[in-house]
Amino acid sequence: MPIPAHLSLTIPDTDLPRIVIVGGGFGGLNLAKGLRKTKAQVVLLDKNNFHTFQPLLYQVATAGLEPDSIAGPLRKSFEGNPNYFFRMVKVTGVNPTLNQVETTVGNLRYDYLVLANGSVTNYFNKKDFRPKVLPLKRVVHALDIRSHILQNFEQAVMTKDKAEFEKLMNIVVVGGGPTGVEVSGALAELKRYILPKDYPDLDFTQMKIHLIEGSDRLLNGMSDFAGREALNYIKKMGINVQLNTFVEDYDGDTVQLNNGTIETATVVWSAGVRGNVVEGLNATSVERSRILVDEFNRVKGTDNVFAIGDVAMMQLQDYPNGHPMMAPVAIQQGQHLAKNLTRDIQEKEMEPFSYFDKGAMATIGKNKAVVDMPNGMHFKGFFAWLIWMFVHIMYLIGFRNKLITLNNWVWSYFTYDKGTRLIIRTFNRKFLRRPSSVNKI
Amino acid sequence: MPIPAHLSLTIPDTDLPRIVIVGGGFGGLNLAKGLRKTKAQVVLLDKNNFHTFQPLLYQVATAGLEPDSIAGPLRKSFEGNPNYFFRMVKVTGVNPTLNQVETTVGNLRYDYLVLANGSVTNYFNKKDFRPKVLPLKRVVHALDIRSHILQNFEQAVMTKDKAEFEKLMNIVVVGGGPTGVEVSGALAELKRYILPKDYPDLDFTQMKIHLIEGSDRLLNGMSDFAGREALNYIKKMGINVQLNTFVEDYDGDTVQLNNGTIETATVVWSAGVRGNVVEGLNATSVERSRILVDEFNRVKGTDNVFAIGDVAMMQLQDYPNGHPMMAPVAIQQGQHLAKNLTRDIQEKEMEPFSYFDKGAMATIGKNKAVVDMPNGMHFKGFFAWLIWMFVHIMYLIGFRNKLITLNNWVWSYFTYDKGTRLIIRTFNRKFLRRPSSVNKI
Repeated sequence: MPIPAHLSLTIPDTDLPRIVIVGGGFGGLNLAKGLRKTKAQVVLLDKNNFHTFQPLLYQVATAGLEPDSIAGPLRKSFEGNPNYFFRMVKVTGVNPTLNQVETTVGNLRYDYLVLANGSVTNYFNKKDFRPKVLPLKRVVHALDIRSHILQNFEQAVMTKDKAEFEKLMNIVVVGGGPTGVEVSGALAELKRYILPKDYPDLDFTQMKIHLIEGSDRLLNGMSDFAGREALNYIKKMGINVQLNTFVEDYDGDTVQLNNGTIETATVVWSAGVRGNVVEGLNATSVERSRILVDEFNRVKGTDNVFAIGDVAMMQLQDYPNGHPMMAPVAIQQGQHLAKNLTRDIQEKEMEPFSYFDKGAMATIGKNKAVVDMPNGMHFKGFFAWLIWMFVHIMYLIGFRNKLITLNNWVWSYFTYDKGTRLIIRTFNRKFLRRPSSVNKI
Repeated sequence: MPIPAHLSLTIPDTDLPRIVIVGGGFGGLNLAKGLRKTKAQVVLLDKNNFHTFQPLLYQVATAGLEPDSIAGPLRKSFEGNPNYFFRMVKVTGVNPTLNQVETTVGNLRYDYLVLANGSVTNYFNKKDFRPKVLPLKRVVHALDIRSHILQNFEQAVMTKDKAEFEKLMNIVVVGGGPTGVEVSGALAELKRYILPKDYPDLDFTQMKIHLIEGSDRLLNGMSDFAGREALNYIKKMGINVQLNTFVEDYDGDTVQLNNGTIETATVVWSAGVRGNVVEGLNATSVERSRILVDEFNRVKGTDNVFAIGDVAMMQLQDYPNGHPMMAPVAIQQGQHLAKNLTRDIQEKEMEPFSYFDKGAMATIGKNKAVVDMPNGMHFKGFFAWLIWMFVHIMYLIGFRNKLITLNNWVWSYFTYDKGTRLIIRTFNRKFLRRPSSVNKI
C-alpha cells in the first residue's frame, strides 16, 4: 500500500542531543524509561503503537488471554515527558555516515541511535512453505493461530472425508524451545478440558498434537534437568514429541519430515528467531543475523550507534556467541544503556555491561513448570508454576494489565474454562497468507 | 473464497422434531436456552462462533473494552445438551416448500425453522460510498473503527499538510440514534481525557466530532425528554450536532451534506439498520425489509417457519409498524417462542406474544445518561448512568464477561484511562474495504 505523500518525519530541533530508539520492545521501552531524567530528546520509532509482552503471546494464541492483557500502548509510557516523541513508522535503513535513520515516511537525524528492534521469525530460508505456516511473534500472529485452529474444528464437525478430518484435527508445533513447549502444553490442556465440552460431536482422542524438535532435547538453553522434566510433562500430557527431527517441506496438507510425514492443516512455526538487522550497517558489524557490539552495546565501527536486546551480539568470555535472545537481557541492556548514554551526555566514562542472570523458566501446563535458578538449583511442579505466574505478572507492564491477566488466570484455574474462544478473523487455509499480518502505514 | 468441497451440513436424524435456528443473537440464543428441556433436536446456525452483545459494541470501537468482554462463544451456551448442534455456516436461503434451509455448505431439513438473523447496516442504497464509511454492527467493525481512528492520529502527528490534518482529526458520526449518540459521546470523552495525554504534539482543540441526524431530534423512539437532554449533553461535550441534515455523498475525503460539506477521513455510519431477510420467502411476507409474522411469530403464509427479533415485524394495534428493533424485544420473543414451540410439540395451543416494555435508556458519557421508564417517568444524570451500567452488566452473557467489564469500567471511572488503545489492524484509508470484514467459511 502506498504511503500517503503528505506524511513526513519531523521532530522539533532543540539544543538537546537527540536519541532515536528503533523498537518499543523490552529493550527500547526500558531504555526510554531510563532516560526520563536525562537532558535529551528521545524519539521512539515502532511500526506498532503498542508494546507486546511476548512471553505471553502463546496465551493469546491458545485462547487464554485477549491482546489488551499482554499489550500496552507505547504512548502511555511517554505521558508527561515533553522531550519524548513517538512515531508509528517502519524503519527501512540507517545511514551512519549521515547520522540518519531512514523510514517509510522520510529520514531523521540522530545524535545517538539505538537499534532495539528485536528479532523476527527464522524460517531458515524455507521460502516455499513460509506462507503456509503460522508464526508466533506478534499479536496478529497469535490471533491468527487462535482463529485458524478454532475454525478448523468448526470445519471438522462438518466433514465426512476422513483424510480432511485428520488434517483439521492434527496440530504440528515446530521447535522445542520455550514457545513451542508452552504452545503445545496449552493446546494439550485445551484438548483435555475445554474442547470436548465445546464440540461434543468431535472425538478429541483423534486430535493429535505433535512437537517437532531438531536437537536431542527440549528447552535448549535451559538446564538438562529442565529439558528432561519438560519432556516428561509433555509426554504425560499426550503430546507426540519427535526429537532429532527436521521439517523439510509443507504444502498446506502434508509436513515432510526427515523421517516421515504428518497430515495437518496447522503448523505453528516456533522453530527460532533471528536478529531483525536493519539495512545500511557495515557488513563486518553483522554476524549470524545479529549486530556485533562492544561491552557498551556500541555497534562495532561506529561512535554513536548502539544495539541492545535480541538484535545485539556482545561477545564476552562467558558469552562467546552473545547473550541468549530473551527478555531479561533486553531489559537489563536497555536499563544499562540509559545510564551509559546519560554518562556520555554528561561527558563521563561509560561502564561496561554485565548480565545478571536471574535464571530461566518455562511452563508446560497447570501446576507444571520448570525453573532454573541462577545458583544452579532447579525445580519443577506446582511451586515452579507459582513462581512462573508471579514473575510474569510482576513484569507485565502496568497495573491494569496485571489485574486483568490475574483475573483470567484465577478464573481459568478454578474452572478450567477460557473465555476467548472467538473466531474474529476467518481465512481459507489454502491461502494462508493473511492480510492482517501485513502491518504497514 | 471457495467453500471446501468436502464439507457438508449433516445432523443426525432422530425421532425428535428438528428446530433449526438461524442466528445466535439475543433472539436465537434465548430461544435455544428456553428449549433446553423440550423434547426436540435444536440446530443453531451462525456465521460467527460467538454471540455479540451489540449494545456495547461502541465501547470496543472507542477503546473501552476488548471483544471478549462483549462476545461469548456460542458453543459454550450449548454445553451438556446432547440434542443441541451448532454449525458455523452462512445461511443463503430457505425453501419452505421442501422444508429446507440452504447454506454455503449444503441444505438441511427442518421441522420448525426460526429466522433470528437480526438486522444489517442500512446504507439506504448509497452504494457508492458504502465501502468508504465505517459501519458498527459487528465485532470486526468495532475493531476497524478503533484501529482506523488511532491510526489517523498517528498520521496527523506526521503531516504538515493542513487540509490532510483536518481530515485526519475530524470524525463524522452519521445517525442520532442510541449508537450514534453513544459513539460520539465516547469519542468526546476520549478527546477530553485520554488523547491529549497520549498525543502531546497534537492540538485536540482542532479535533471536531460531528453528529449528523436526519430528523429534528436525537434518540428517536425514546421520549422527547430523553431526546432533548441527550442533545444538551452532546452539545455540552463539544460535539457539533446537525439535525435535519442528510449525507448525500462521501468520497473518502469530503462528506456532502444537503446543507454543506465536512472534510474528514472518518465517517462512522450508524444511520440505521434493516432486517436481514433471507432469500426464498414469499414476497408478500416481507414488508420494509422485515418479515411479517402473526402474534405467534409465525411467518405469514407458512405453518412451521417463524421469525423473531429485528428481522420480524408483528403488526399489532399498539405496534402498527412492528416492535422497535432492539434487544429486549428479541429476548422476549425468543423466550416466548421457546414456550410456544414446546406447546406445539406437545400438541397444545400456542399463546400470542405480548411485549413487556421495560423502558429504554442511552448513555452519553460518564454520569451522563437518559432513562425512559415504562410508567412514563424519565430521568437523567448520575443515577440514570448507574442504572444503565447495572442493566448492561446484568444482561451481559455469563459471569466471566461481567467480571472483566466491571473491572474495566471501574478502572476507567477512577482513572479516566482506557487500556485498549491498540492498533491491531492497519489499512489504507483510500482502500477502506477491509478484508477482515468479510467473514466466510
